[in-house]
Amino acid sequence: MARHRRGGDLLHLLLTLLLAAALLLAPAAADPEADVALTAPAQDASEEAEASAQQQHLLPRPLVIELPSSSVAAASELGDDEFPPEVRCASWRLAAEANNLAPWGAVPAECAAHVREYVTGAAYRSDLELVARESAAYARAAPLGGDDRDAWVFDVDETLLSNLPYYADHGFGAELFDHHKFDEWVERGEAPAIPSSFKLYKEVRELGFKIFLLTGRTEGHRGVTVDNLKNQGFHDWDKLILRAAADRKKTATTYKSEKRKEMEAEGYRILGNSGDQWSDLLGSSMSARSFKLPNPMYYIP
Amino acid sequence: MARHRRGGDLLHLLLTLLLAAALLLAPAAADPEADVALTAPAQDASEEAEASAQQQHLLPRPLVIELPSSSVAAASELGDDEFPPEVRCASWRLAAEANNLAPWGAVPAECAAHVREYVTGAAYRSDLELVARESAAYARAAPLGGDDRDAWVFDVDETLLSNLPYYADHGFGAELFDHHKFDEWVERGEAPAIPSSFKLYKEVRELGFKIFLLTGRTEGHRGVTVDNLKNQGFHDWDKLILRAAADRKKTATTYKSEKRKEMEAEGYRILGNSGDQWSDLLGSSMSARSFKLPNPMYYIP
Repeated sequence: MARHRRGGDLLHLLLTLLLAAALLLAPAAADPEADVALTAPAQDASEEAEASAQQQHLLPRPLVIELPSSSVAAASELGDDEFPPEVRCASWRLAAEANNLAPWGAVPAECAAHVREYVTGAAYRSDLELVARESAAYARAAPLGGDDRDAWVFDVDETLLSNLPYYADHGFGAELFDHHKFDEWVERGEAPAIPSSFKLYKEVRELGFKIFLLTGRTEGHRGVTVDNLKNQGFHDWDKLILRAAADRKKTATTYKSEKRKEMEAEGYRILGNSGDQWSDLLGSSMSARSFKLPNPMYYIP
Repeated sequence: MARHRRGGDLLHLLLTLLLAAALLLAPAAADPEADVALTAPAQDASEEAEASAQQQHLLPRPLVIELPSSSVAAASELGDDEFPPEVRCASWRLAAEANNLAPWGAVPAECAAHVREYVTGAAYRSDLELVARESAAYARAAPLGGDDRDAWVFDVDETLLSNLPYYADHGFGAELFDHHKFDEWVERGEAPAIPSSFKLYKEVRELGFKIFLLTGRTEGHRGVTVDNLKNQGFHDWDKLILRAAADRKKTATTYKSEKRKEMEAEGYRILGNSGDQWSDLLGSSMSARSFKLPNPMYYIP
């Protein structure tokens, strides 16, 4: 059928992009949700690897992330001096939120102050609250099946829990990401809830959605993550999915797509998905509607 | 094969959403690129209609657009008064650009001034320029096949040409859209080029991409659109695709997906796609990479 053929084409492209990203973004170390660097394609993704090998010409860019190590690189990224830094940095942040940027490793040096002011000020809270309100309006209007199979997926870091206290000590994304130090922070289990997300979480749960928490954190952090979520008031989720050893080298997009596919295979309908990274939302088995929470501090492929 | 099954599932969901949108968004008149209102599902989209009928439960919201007719509606949309209007309107605009909003018919009344100041000020130009720079960097790094089959798709309105002179006279999106008046504006053929897009267009063309202009304008406007593009310096595109009679009742997402599929069927690889609406970029046969130009003035499903 044409429908299936077309779907195959689309999926082929998606798989190609995902896998090529997995292959080519390997050096990207700026993943605060995984405690390993992505260094190789997933061993168990032979189907995708095949698709990738067939259509690598479709990936039009050697997406090796050059972490900006100087303000020269950042300035070049942001263009010339036609606009004042505040305007240019607002453009950079908007482009990040609209998924217009190539994978980036750190906030451009000249935008460090802009990002700091944004995430510590009213604008970030307001942005978070508006997205939560849109999400809640959608959830309330959703005609649930009454069979306990309607699901909402939440990411954890910068979605339910905030790592702002950590990033406040580390340049709000302007410093290179340090897996070791971030792990130490995670293991303290002190990340505060994002208030608007907490309210949304409660409402979605009360509406009768199944709640799946899908995080890039690893299984080794399950205990501390559960404790942290509970000490912030999050209870009664249906599943908390963390990266297993086999997921370690996958991009977040691949890993999360696979987990959503498993949910679908179990009969769940994913009606909503909340995440601060496009890699929480894009890929395959996508949610009927996705909500992108703001995050100008880091990028996860 | 699992790949095809998964693709079928994904496509099924996409088709369902597209068609349900076509069905339910019918009253949305805010489509400046089409000169007909979307009032019924496409007659020739029986496959999609079937998919829609089967899975309407997947569309979790009665997406009937209530055009905000009072500031009460707008205020409710924007939430309470915790934040000053400027902050709330910036959040609204960010949410629009990140595709977080439900389909909307007009700029919320309380954000009319914010949007006016944005599109007439430096921020809009800066945002447009940054997206064009990212697009050009990607285009330059793309390994073209050397077989004249690498394509870049451009939307026209608010992508290559600007209708700001029209919107300046009509509330910058705060007024209800008037097809008749907008058509009169289009027929004058006086829409100026967006300078950053013009520069990108030239560079992409010089790099050897095939250039496809894919617009929601109708065939009846071919002559005036060609004249307008040429009087603004756009020349030598490979195809200018406008809505035929059979496309009139399709959503932009459906219509543009079908046209991209035709490009692929002709052997083209769509490496880049520039548009100011998510309906220029999402759907099926998506580009390897897409660029969302800012537009807080109107929403096209």
